[in-house]
Amino acid sequence: MDLISIDSLSDDAIAAILDRGEHWFRENRERRPSELLNGKLLFSLFYENSTRTAMSFATAARRLGAADVFFPVEQSSIKKGETFEDTARTLNAMRPDVLVVRHRENGAPAQMAEMMDCPVINAGDGTNEHPTQALLDALALRLKLSRIEGFKVAICGDIRHSRVAHSNAKLLLRLGAEVRLAGPPSLIPEDGTALSVDEAIAGADVVMMLRVQRERLEDELGDAPGEYLRYYGLTPQRLASAAPNAVVMHPGPMNRGVEIADAVADDPERSLILLQVEAGVAVRMACLELLAGA
Amino acid sequence: MDLISIDSLSDDAIAAILDRGEHWFRENRERRPSELLNGKLLFSLFYENSTRTAMSFATAARRLGAADVFFPVEQSSIKKGETFEDTARTLNAMRPDVLVVRHRENGAPAQMAEMMDCPVINAGDGTNEHPTQALLDALALRLKLSRIEGFKVAICGDIRHSRVAHSNAKLLLRLGAEVRLAGPPSLIPEDGTALSVDEAIAGADVVMMLRVQRERLEDELGDAPGEYLRYYGLTPQRLASAAPNAVVMHPGPMNRGVEIADAVADDPERSLILLQVEAGVAVRMACLELLAGA
Amino acid sequence: MDLISIDSLSDDAIAAILDRGEHWFRENRERRPSELLNGKLLFSLFYENSTRTAMSFATAARRLGAADVFFPVEQSSIKKGETFEDTARTLNAMRPDVLVVRHRENGAPAQMAEMMDCPVINAGDGTNEHPTQALLDALALRLKLSRIEGFKVAICGDIRHSRVAHSNAKLLLRLGAEVRLAGPPSLIPEDGTALSVDEAIAGADVVMMLRVQRERLEDELGDAPGEYLRYYGLTPQRLASAAPNAVVMHPGPMNRGVEIADAVADDPERSLILLQVEAGVAVRMACLELLAGA
Repeated sequence: MDLISIDSLSDDAIAAILDRGEHWFRENRERRPSELLNGKLLFSLFYENSTRTAMSFATAARRLGAADVFFPVEQSSIKKGETFEDTARTLNAMRPDVLVVRHRENGAPAQMAEMMDCPVINAGDGTNEHPTQALLDALALRLKLSRIEGFKVAICGDIRHSRVAHSNAKLLLRLGAEVRLAGPPSLIPEDGTALSVDEAIAGADVVMMLRVQRERLEDELGDAPGEYLRYYGLTPQRLASAAPNAVVMHPGPMNRGVEIADAVADDPERSLILLQVEAGVAVRMACLELLAGA
Repeated sequence: MDLISIDSLSDDAIAAILDRGEHWFRENRERRPSELLNGKLLFSLFYENSTRTAMSFATAARRLGAADVFFPVEQSSIKKGETFEDTARTLNAMRPDVLVVRHRENGAPAQMAEMMDCPVINAGDGTNEHPTQALLDALALRLKLSRIEGFKVAICGDIRHSRVAHSNAKLLLRLGAEVRLAGPPSLIPEDGTALSVDEAIAGADVVMMLRVQRERLEDELGDAPGEYLRYYGLTPQRLASAAPNAVVMHPGPMNRGVEIADAVADDPERSLILLQVEAGVAVRMACLELLAGA
Repeated sequence: MDLISIDSLSDDAIAAILDRGEHWFRENRERRPSELLNGKLLFSLFYENSTRTAMSFATAARRLGAADVFFPVEQSSIKKGETFEDTARTLNAMRPDVLVVRHRENGAPAQMAEMMDCPVINAGDGTNEHPTQALLDALALRLKLSRIEGFKVAICGDIRHSRVAHSNAKLLLRLGAEVRLAGPPSLIPEDGTALSVDEAIAGADVVMMLRVQRERLEDELGDAPGEYLRYYGLTPQRLASAAPNAVVMHPGPMNRGVEIADAVADDPERSLILLQVEAGVAVRMACLELLAGA
C-alpha cells in the first residue's frame, strides 16, 4: 500500500490514520517513544529542499523506533547523469521498509511507487498533492473542533500551484466539509469555481491560508510590501467576517505580514498553526504504522 | 583489522566476507533486521560526494543495529584550515567503533588507518581502490553463477582512472578468473596488457562496464553524442560476441546510451546491475560484521 | 533546565557534569554504549557550520542510545522567509526531548530556550559563550592534572571575539584558577585587564591557545605567513617560560604554524588537544544525561 494521493486512500484508511493519529498525538506530546517499528528502515528522498517536512518524518520514524536514512538529492551527485528510474530501482534494491519522497515534478512519487517493492509516501510533488499535509490538517481540526463534517473551510492563496490546497480540498470534501477556494485572480483555477477572498472567508468556520511564493508574489503585485496582505491576506478585520469562533490554519513556513497578519497568526485561541505542526508528527507516525507496521 | 585494499585481505577474510555476504543478502532481501552491532558507532567520512555508496553503508549499518554518523566533508567546514591528519586524530579521539572513508586522493584511507585505533574501511580512494565494490561484484557473480573460478571477465572503459577496475582486477584474479582489460586508447594502461573492447568481450562470461566520467569523455571524443557507445560501449551487437549466457555488470550510476545501451542494461536475464546494488548492502554488512563485530 | 551559559549553571550542576563526565570518559574510551537515553530524541540545530561540535554531540547522543535529528540550517530552506521565533516554535511543537543549537548571533540560544518546553543546550552563540567547550576543557584538565584550583591559566588569542575564551574564563574562575587573558592589541578587551602574550605565559600552568579567524588575522597582520606565530603564537621558546610541566590546550581546529607551532601541538606529554576532543564527547554525554535523563 502506498500513500500517493488523497484519492488513492480508502475511507477506512483515512479513518485509521486519523484515529491512530489521535493516539500518537497523545504519545508524542508526552514524549513517549514506541518500539513498534524497531528494526524498520525508512529512506527519505528529498528532491526538493525541505526542513519542516523532513524533520517531521524523521521525528515520526524515530519516535516509533525506526531508523531513517535521509537523502538530500538536491545536494547530491545523484542528480548528475542517473535517470530518475535508475535511482528508484537502485534504492529499491537496497530493500528499505518504506520510502518517503518529495519531488518537484507532479507524479514522480506515483511513478516511483510503481517501481518500488516497499510502500511509498508522497511528501509533496510539484503542484499536485501533499497528502500527509491534508491528513495532519484534518487531525488538527478534529483535535480542536472534534469534527469536520458540515464546516465551511476557506482555502486562500495560490490555489493554482498549491499541492497543499489540492490535497486539502479533496480530503475535506470527503470528510463532509464545504470547501471554498479563493485567491488573487492569476492564482486561482480558471474554471470559475473560486471566490474572492472576502467571499470565501465570510461565515467560514475554518480559514486556511497558503504560503505565497515570493517569486509569484512579485509577478503579481510588484515588490510593494503590504499590498498582498491588504488585498488577499488574513487580517483581523477580514477574520472578523468569519464565523464567531473560526479557526485559522497555515501549513508553514509563514510569510508574516504577507499572507497572514501577526495578530491572527499568534492568536492563542484561534490559530491552529502550531497544533498543525504537532499533528504532523502524529499523522506521520500513523501513516508509517499503517504502511510499515507488522 | 582494516579494509583498505584487496591485497591487504587474506584469502580467509575474502572467503568469510563472501560467505557472510550470502547470509546477509538473504536477511536483507527479507528485510530482517539484526541486533548484531547494537550499540556500535560507525563514522562515515566522505571527502567526495557519493549517494549510492553512502546510502549502502548506512543501510548496512542500520540493518545490523549500529548507529551511523554521516559526515559530508565536501560541504563542511573541516576542509578549511585543518590538516587531514588533524581531522583523523580528532575523529579517532571520539572513539568510533569503525570508520568508513572516501577520499579523492590515493592512499588517504591507508594513511587514516594508520592514525585510527578502530577499523577503517576504504569506500573508494582516488583512482586507486574501491575494495567493497569488488567484493560486492564478486558476491553478485557468486549469487548468479555459483562460481567465479575459470570465468573470463572483460572490464571495459576508463581502466586507467577507475578504482573499481583496479580492485576488481585484483580480486577476480585471486578468485581464479581470467581478467581482460579494455577501453579507449587514452584510458587504458600503457603497459600493453589491455585489449580492444571487441577483443575483450569476445567469448567473455562476464562483461563489466565502467562509468565514463563526462569530462574525460569530452576530452577523448568531443561532445558527439553516441560516439562512445558506438566505439567502446556495450551494445546488444557487441554482447552477442560474448559467451552464450554472458552476464553484464556496471557499478552505477550508469550513463545510459554512453557506456551501455538500454537494451543491455535492462535485460532481466543478463544484467546483474540491480543485483550488484543489493549485494552491496549485504557485502557491507559482512564487512562491518567482520571488522566491528564482537 | 537549560545549558546556555556558565553563569546559569549552579556549582552543583558543574560538579555533576564533571563527575559524570569522568564516568562517561571511561565508558566511551572503552567504546561501551549505554541505554540511558533510549527512546529520547535530540534535535541538533546548527545555524553555523560545524563538524567537530556537531559530531561530538551526535556521538554523545548515540553512545547513550538517544536518536538525533541533525538540522543543518545553513544549507536549508528554513533561512528563507521564516522568522527565528517561528522556527523555534515549530521545532518545539514536534516535541523533542532536548535541543542543541549553535547560532551566529549572541543570545539566540537563550531566546530559543525561552520558547522551548524541552531543555536547550547552547553549542556556541556568536562571540558570547560556548559552555560545553569550557566544561570539556575543565574535564580534560581534571583528567590530566587531577585539579584546577590554584592553577594559572593563560588564554591567548582573539579574546574579544572568542566565545571559547569567554566561557572558559568564567568557568575557570569559578573552579578556583587564576585566568590571564592575552592577545594582539586589536583583539583583546579594552578594559586594560589583558596582558601581553609573553606576560600571560610566564609561569602559567596551562596555556590555552585560541583559533585565529583568518579574516581577522589578515586585517591585523596582512598576509605575511609566520608573523602571527612570531608575535602571538605558542612556540617552544615561549612555552619554555611557562611552569615546568605546563600543559597546552586548543579548542580546534588548529591553524598550525599560525597560533601554535607543530612541536607544541604534537608534544605527547604536554599537549591536551586530543584529550580535549575525547573529553568533549564525555562532557556532552554528561550534559545530555543531566538535562534529558529520567
